[in-house]
Amino acid sequence: MDNKQRLETLVEICAQAGELAMGYFENQNDLVVDRKGHQDFVSQADRNVEVLTRKLLEEAFPDDGIVGEEDDPKPGTSGFTWVIDPIDGTTNFINGIPAWTVVVAGVCDGKTQIGVIHDPCHSETFAARAGGGATLNGKALVLDDPRALNEGTVGVGYSNRVDAQGVIRLVTGLVEKGAMFHRNASGALSLAYVAAGRLLGYAEEHMNAWDCIAGQLIVAEAGGVVEEQDADAMIADGGRVIVGTSAVFKPLLAICEASFPPTT
Amino acid sequence: MDNKQRLETLVEICAQAGELAMGYFENQNDLVVDRKGHQDFVSQADRNVEVLTRKLLEEAFPDDGIVGEEDDPKPGTSGFTWVIDPIDGTTNFINGIPAWTVVVAGVCDGKTQIGVIHDPCHSETFAARAGGGATLNGKALVLDDPRALNEGTVGVGYSNRVDAQGVIRLVTGLVEKGAMFHRNASGALSLAYVAAGRLLGYAEEHMNAWDCIAGQLIVAEAGGVVEEQDADAMIADGGRVIVGTSAVFKPLLAICEASFPPTT
Repeated sequence: MDNKQRLETLVEICAQAGELAMGYFENQNDLVVDRKGHQDFVSQADRNVEVLTRKLLEEAFPDDGIVGEEDDPKPGTSGFTWVIDPIDGTTNFINGIPAWTVVVAGVCDGKTQIGVIHDPCHSETFAARAGGGATLNGKALVLDDPRALNEGTVGVGYSNRVDAQGVIRLVTGLVEKGAMFHRNASGALSLAYVAAGRLLGYAEEHMNAWDCIAGQLIVAEAGGVVEEQDADAMIADGGRVIVGTSAVFKPLLAICEASFPPTT
Repeated sequence: MDNKQRLETLVEICAQAGELAMGYFENQNDLVVDRKGHQDFVSQADRNVEVLTRKLLEEAFPDDGIVGEEDDPKPGTSGFTWVIDPIDGTTNFINGIPAWTVVVAGVCDGKTQIGVIHDPCHSETFAARAGGGATLNGKALVLDDPRALNEGTVGVGYSNRVDAQGVIRLVTGLVEKGAMFHRNASGALSLAYVAAGRLLGYAEEHMNAWDCIAGQLIVAEAGGVVEEQDADAMIADGGRVIVGTSAVFKPLLAICEASFPPTT
């Protein structure tokens, strides 16, 4: 199966996974009362969306490997590996904020070949394949925004995996350069927004592969600039993520270099 | 007409205004090509949504005054004044990010009596009247979240009306206390999210009345804590906005006191 067919199939799989997740999202407040029960419910939603996505991927691509956030990796024989984040933006999901996504990337030869970020709350599917361009609901995404950093908004992300000073320096650097910052607490959605021209760039000190490699491909294929990484190394350890339009990438990279500890 | 009836009428007016705004939001990319044309288009959308909202308010409440972001104030004879923000979160609107709202507050005797924040992208209407409780799509909102600042997320806002150091200190203070921050670039939507329990609090150094007084009432009526302000003074000059659950308000206020310049 070629990557074009793989991508078409993946878009359908993500739509099904998104429908399942959406059911949990819409009904969570009616089904559980206390916070502990709520958290268990969302963990279960996360797990069940991953189980469904795995099942559909295994049926469609029986020879491929699968790596997910929730479950053990399944080795494949084809050299092609699917990387799943069943619900990116879990905090938003649990808080009832409609900014979360279903994310799947396909990796082969140390490179991301396919990426889909599906936003069920807004029926938006951002998709790309290496060399084949990026789309939003099937319509080509082409970045050609000439605005400088101080004329727009940059998304930022952080997690408790890294020291808090990194994001503080990042926000400080952006604001002092006259840029606005945005933090919607879904890294994948923010990357999709960069690809769609809704944010000028996105930066986060550490992301896991399942959160970012799909989005990085979609941004690159839309014509944005992405700090290069080896996809296999990202799957193993995660890493920092910096993307932007060609007009803002260099100054954004400079702010990140000054904000984040040096990468080894 | 009593405030209960006023609120019911206002909810209908905001729904109509939201429908008009939604049409502009969905079609903006098909109708205009360049950035300058895009900005003019959105300014026109903003103006036309305000014109419609004013017209509907005048028809329903001919004796009331009206204050809007876009047009000159209309004095009234009833002592009741409507304060309109046709599209709060204009930057999101123009960038295609579905996080913007139609906001209207009703003020009398220096106090906000009625507030509606309508989010057309998600068909969510947050509403309150003084002493009458807060609702989301008609369902009562009741805040009883015991989580501390370091267990949740606080919304932050800023604009180029104030020095950039305020929001830098605010973000620093939050992150160093172990809280997450969220910035969705619609102050009114963030306030609505506090009322709905989706964010623990919200802080911004300077907001205009049309951006905040509706949301402050909705938070207060949902059981949250709101730094008190005189509504007439807010209409004249704007001011700082700090709201939160009862569990986080005091520590959030302390961070803001240390972050923002003293109020006079």
